[in-house]
Amino acid sequence: MRAAPSPDEIRRQNLAVLLRHVHSSGPMSRTALAERMGLNRSTILALTADLAAAGLVSEELPGQTGKAGRPSLVVRPESERVYGLALDVGADRLAVARVGLGGVILDRRETRRPSGTFDPNDVIGALVDLAENMIRGSGPETVCVGVGVAFCGMVREEDGVVRYGPNIGWVDVPVGARLSERLGLRVVVGNNANLGALAERERGVGIGVADMIYLHGEVGIGGGIIMGGKLLGGEGGYGGEVGHMIVNPGGRACTCGSYGCLEAEAGELALIAAAGRADLTGRAAVEAIVDAAARGDATARDALHQVGDWLGYGVANLVNIFNPTMVVFGGVLREIYLASAAQVRSRLAVNGLLAVRERVRLRTSALADDAPLVGAAELAFADVLTDPLQTLARISN
Amino acid sequence: MRAAPSPDEIRRQNLAVLLRHVHSSGPMSRTALAERMGLNRSTILALTADLAAAGLVSEELPGQTGKAGRPSLVVRPESERVYGLALDVGADRLAVARVGLGGVILDRRETRRPSGTFDPNDVIGALVDLAENMIRGSGPETVCVGVGVAFCGMVREEDGVVRYGPNIGWVDVPVGARLSERLGLRVVVGNNANLGALAERERGVGIGVADMIYLHGEVGIGGGIIMGGKLLGGEGGYGGEVGHMIVNPGGRACTCGSYGCLEAEAGELALIAAAGRADLTGRAAVEAIVDAAARGDATARDALHQVGDWLGYGVANLVNIFNPTMVVFGGVLREIYLASAAQVRSRLAVNGLLAVRERVRLRTSALADDAPLVGAAELAFADVLTDPLQTLARISN
Repeated sequence: MRAAPSPDEIRRQNLAVLLRHVHSSGPMSRTALAERMGLNRSTILALTADLAAAGLVSEELPGQTGKAGRPSLVVRPESERVYGLALDVGADRLAVARVGLGGVILDRRETRRPSGTFDPNDVIGALVDLAENMIRGSGPETVCVGVGVAFCGMVREEDGVVRYGPNIGWVDVPVGARLSERLGLRVVVGNNANLGALAERERGVGIGVADMIYLHGEVGIGGGIIMGGKLLGGEGGYGGEVGHMIVNPGGRACTCGSYGCLEAEAGELALIAAAGRADLTGRAAVEAIVDAAARGDATARDALHQVGDWLGYGVANLVNIFNPTMVVFGGVLREIYLASAAQVRSRLAVNGLLAVRERVRLRTSALADDAPLVGAAELAFADVLTDPLQTLARISN
Repeated sequence: MRAAPSPDEIRRQNLAVLLRHVHSSGPMSRTALAERMGLNRSTILALTADLAAAGLVSEELPGQTGKAGRPSLVVRPESERVYGLALDVGADRLAVARVGLGGVILDRRETRRPSGTFDPNDVIGALVDLAENMIRGSGPETVCVGVGVAFCGMVREEDGVVRYGPNIGWVDVPVGARLSERLGLRVVVGNNANLGALAERERGVGIGVADMIYLHGEVGIGGGIIMGGKLLGGEGGYGGEVGHMIVNPGGRACTCGSYGCLEAEAGELALIAAAGRADLTGRAAVEAIVDAAARGDATARDALHQVGDWLGYGVANLVNIFNPTMVVFGGVLREIYLASAAQVRSRLAVNGLLAVRERVRLRTSALADDAPLVGAAELAFADVLTDPLQTLARISN
């Protein structure tokens, strides 16, 4: 037998539910909240007052509604005071952001990770510097409620250990514990593409989409797969590594040790090699090649054609395997997809099966390079969205 | 507000839960049922009496338990009286079975589908003949509670329309409706590999496994993917078509129109072609090649080596994408996998990523060719397992 929840417990749950509503959906009238939560307006008023006193929400008059009668006050998440710290450890860059409730990026800094700095001590040291600078730069009244890290590799979520990061050369590095020790804050680590997928579904192009594949291009290609509204994890939570699906056996060498992986054939390194632009790296290289192709450069066009064809093989395979509603291209795959959409679509038309290719939508990321950061912030917010007042009280002490 | 369920409604639900327990887990003592269901023994006794009067369960003394005191009677599903009719429409065969409660195959017949009989009228006519013969052959006291069909293609489950069956050449054939009209029974249709996956998880090698990939080899290769304990359907329920993942671009032609699909490279047709045994077809061909290889025939060995290598590419890709606990080889892939396990495993060791390849288990199907039939029977049982007595009353009238 489970005991009935106490009034305190019910209030705590209701505070959390209300905060999650405005965090996810944005400003909302008291009336709408009362309807969604099945509570009366006086209860909503009391809950809102508690959250407002803690600096988590604010209330304001709505704009002109055109309706007669007294308008219902609008409750909005208070993004300035309470924030999550989001870190993104990419294959060639480190990014950090302060993200307010409601998923608002308040401040953001990024640094190239110079190639060669693979040593975990160096990378973690650089992350700590970025994070501490940002925390110092925030106002005295602000509160950091947690740290979320998006990592370009396979992460054991329960303890934040990076099991394998082929593009950064790490095996079994306890990133979460080491950052937590240095920062003195709770740190949760996740895979960057998984977090990007969740962010696009919560705040981007995939709102309301139950079955979605998110492909994140950086140096490699990561995948975040949402099926039936839930992230596909598999046994250990390492699922979604679509970048290491081999599309071209015996093809280009991949950092993982195999040949012909999707990321080796359709990622930015393949594009740079095909276009002969080894003078540039990363996003700058991709943009230069896309620009050159738009101006009619034949080498750049051929390179995009070739890479787009392999991307199309990968997308067609995934569409046949998953029957998704939407495939989302994020990171530099946004630019690569937009410049090679004809190849990708024609490959899908040839290789996709009848019943699955007919309805799938191919879309570009709405959050662009920030999708993993926005997803990482959700990890940082987990506690405050579960028990708002207790979490703030714990952190303030 | 939802009204509290009436005593009748509660009884109906409890009857269904009890029947599902013994149907899934097999004979069970009244004491164990009382514990699992959180009910007292007198309620269990009353429920069991109702189900026994309807011929759905029977009770018996357990074998020697060695414990002192009065033993608890064992409740077992009554497999003889009530049965589901299961049909399996394969690429080269039609099978039909009467399956009793508890998943017991009571009677089973199979016929080769002569190559060339692609006409839906012919195939549906042959299925109806098989089904009617089997129904006639069952005793006068027996009751058919429904029909489940496993089909080798993409099925829209809500209305039983085959959207696409590349190996049988069908597009948009209303198999469910046409069978139902001819047989005068409720007919539910599903994909054969999906149903095989569910059967292996319920009664085969995957009991208790949450994240499992089932590969069913017949003429083609179908996939049934269970993640977090649930079948992966995707938007339209067509997910899992791993046989049409392209592993070898520009490779062997596939019935779907593409080249180098997993089923074109690692299915029985590829094996037969590589071994030069076009004199045989289907399981007989696979078995002859496996036998020849075991006797040292170099051509047969090379053929299995080649096919096993492509199978390994497919398995490694799926393991990287899904991080499953188990991959199960069913149908003729059982024999192909067993005879080429070294190639499959070495490909997985090379191409599988560190964190996902280390724990995955590769296993052969426990239900062999019958997995889709056993899964189809579950479709047939759906009503009687939801509302046992009403369903029987409805069918008897």
